[in-house]
Amino acid sequence: MAGTNVAFTTEEYRHRLARVQTEVQNRNLVGLLVHSPHNICYLAGYHTSGYFAYQVLFIPAEGEPLLLVRESERLHADVFSWLEIDHQAVYLDIEDPAVVTGKWLNKLGWTNADRAIGLEKSCFNLPVRDYEKISAAAQPNTLIDASGLVNRLRLIKSPQEVEYARRAARTVDIGMKAGLEALAVGKTELEIAAAIQEQQILAGTEYQSLPNYVSSGERIRRGHSTPTEKVIERGDLLKFEITGSVNRYHAALMRTAIMGKPSDEVLRVSELLITCQHRAFQLMKPGAVSGDVDAAVREPVLEAGLRKTYLPRIGYSLGIGFPPVSGEWEVCDFMANDTWILQPGMIFHMVVNANGISFSETMLVTESGPERLTTLPRELYVVE
Amino acid sequence: MAGTNVAFTTEEYRHRLARVQTEVQNRNLVGLLVHSPHNICYLAGYHTSGYFAYQVLFIPAEGEPLLLVRESERLHADVFSWLEIDHQAVYLDIEDPAVVTGKWLNKLGWTNADRAIGLEKSCFNLPVRDYEKISAAAQPNTLIDASGLVNRLRLIKSPQEVEYARRAARTVDIGMKAGLEALAVGKTELEIAAAIQEQQILAGTEYQSLPNYVSSGERIRRGHSTPTEKVIERGDLLKFEITGSVNRYHAALMRTAIMGKPSDEVLRVSELLITCQHRAFQLMKPGAVSGDVDAAVREPVLEAGLRKTYLPRIGYSLGIGFPPVSGEWEVCDFMANDTWILQPGMIFHMVVNANGISFSETMLVTESGPERLTTLPRELYVVE
Repeated sequence: MAGTNVAFTTEEYRHRLARVQTEVQNRNLVGLLVHSPHNICYLAGYHTSGYFAYQVLFIPAEGEPLLLVRESERLHADVFSWLEIDHQAVYLDIEDPAVVTGKWLNKLGWTNADRAIGLEKSCFNLPVRDYEKISAAAQPNTLIDASGLVNRLRLIKSPQEVEYARRAARTVDIGMKAGLEALAVGKTELEIAAAIQEQQILAGTEYQSLPNYVSSGERIRRGHSTPTEKVIERGDLLKFEITGSVNRYHAALMRTAIMGKPSDEVLRVSELLITCQHRAFQLMKPGAVSGDVDAAVREPVLEAGLRKTYLPRIGYSLGIGFPPVSGEWEVCDFMANDTWILQPGMIFHMVVNANGISFSETMLVTESGPERLTTLPRELYVVE
Repeated sequence: MAGTNVAFTTEEYRHRLARVQTEVQNRNLVGLLVHSPHNICYLAGYHTSGYFAYQVLFIPAEGEPLLLVRESERLHADVFSWLEIDHQAVYLDIEDPAVVTGKWLNKLGWTNADRAIGLEKSCFNLPVRDYEKISAAAQPNTLIDASGLVNRLRLIKSPQEVEYARRAARTVDIGMKAGLEALAVGKTELEIAAAIQEQQILAGTEYQSLPNYVSSGERIRRGHSTPTEKVIERGDLLKFEITGSVNRYHAALMRTAIMGKPSDEVLRVSELLITCQHRAFQLMKPGAVSGDVDAAVREPVLEAGLRKTYLPRIGYSLGIGFPPVSGEWEVCDFMANDTWILQPGMIFHMVVNANGISFSETMLVTESGPERLTTLPRELYVVE
């Protein structure tokens, strides 16, 4: 019996599993160990914020997966997972989960298989110490790197995945609107952040994979500046980056605001950033080459002398998130001269910033072209 | 020049560094690579929510540390770190940070040293792939596990650290109070969670290392249940677990509430849990043996038949947190028959739960005995 609140149909999960298993077979692996909470959520439905404790999903080349989690987290499988209870296993707090994983490798016959075992060497949630124990337990078989195998299959979203991202985007729009409307000289950044988070929770966001960022004055030149007790002053520029999550699917949005009349320079930079990003959006059609989309933002910003160099990504794939990994940049982002191809169902957080002024949107690629999932007006927000 | 908003005096950071370097020397290491964001924050002051990107602190056996971070995060060092700018280095998004780390190992002379290099093999923030690259670059030298070396030195908090934990506890008290007072039949869990988070941010919490938990009805038997659109009904029990953070120091608090008159059974369990936990608190004096504190909770709960088995920890050390690792349980928690000794300056999140009813406090051990940092009444909260 499936869990009581499973996010997708069993058919959709089986489709995902089949694609992963095809790839596992193509690589001639006996099976794949999945430690990423993102990939476990994608394939098993199971998720918990208690992923600080070890968890793993065994994906055999054929047949049903096995989910191994901390005993006190297992009840989350009853809610979120489509896997039958006899494909779930637990370890106790008095056990070493890497050792328990080794026992299961043996029980499943993977240790004596004639094909290697894949696992995710780039994953945060598989510490080296656990890896070494599992590696020893897997003998005479060997572990080989299969990082990104599942992640790459996550890039194209199904209609139901898009729907969750769309709902996440709505919580982001609502939060940003609340933040912008709360702006006033004399308030603190924390007061603005409190209004945003309150409205986002009421709109249904889950815990987000990144904190909401609100900063003002000098601090806008830093990325990832969380709100402080700093008082908002006349003339301040403010930078917002808001994230929302529904069924772990994320959307994100950045905006810049100014307390009072903007200078010509601020207006010029804002307009340039919005315009070049808009051109990039227009290119985001199925079949587009990523480097072309990237160039539409990167080159005008460099040509205008707004950045001496511009090396960070100008966008990245967005989907399932758990703190601190909110994006799918490991397998898909926009960097100069890249040549991967945009496809329908891809979702991106597209970002541009220079001189502390930032704009971003959550963009969906559809059969008929780009669609903006975040919907607030794309403009410098001026508080007179 | 130190950063503009450094949480501790340079003297305090130098004291921490000296203790780590003494241990590095005792273990006959040329130096230590610190990848844990918690330990980097502890030793360098530096922190950012962008720790999804690789970051490392090189601690030589003698002399100044070197901080290596993503270029776009470096400005956080200008704010939070006591390290001079010439002891900071960056990598670009177009570089492989593990390779850059290898180059620094060479430049620092660690690759050809006659003593091994320590690093944190149990750390989430050092993926196996990076470890293997660094290991290759370190040759002919070798990397050996020094997990917990820094973490153990974090267990005893200074007066300034206690002060931050105390302020975090205040945000938790304020949030919990707001949540309890907002309770009403017909509201959703999300509405209660929104009130809590809004008040906590206004009270000065930073982003927390765990989400706030609010659950009602059947779901209270699960740990780590985040709020949903479920409507609160008459007769519902509600479980809250609230976390707050100030300068990354955390406090946490759990409470249980009931919508209407509690049954005799609910009253009996609540009273038993509060009473046995209170006895454990009374034992939390310098010199106490952890197993004795543990037994004061674990044994009465088992004797009363409230749990068939009781294997999870009943408390753990609390301090610097970054999602998803909120506690210092890796190096210090309360399990049956443990024999470590309580010392002044230790801070713990002490937890008891059975039948979905939960209570917890953030406790400080002082020279003169236990002090509760979370201050709300310890009782079942009844909403008539």
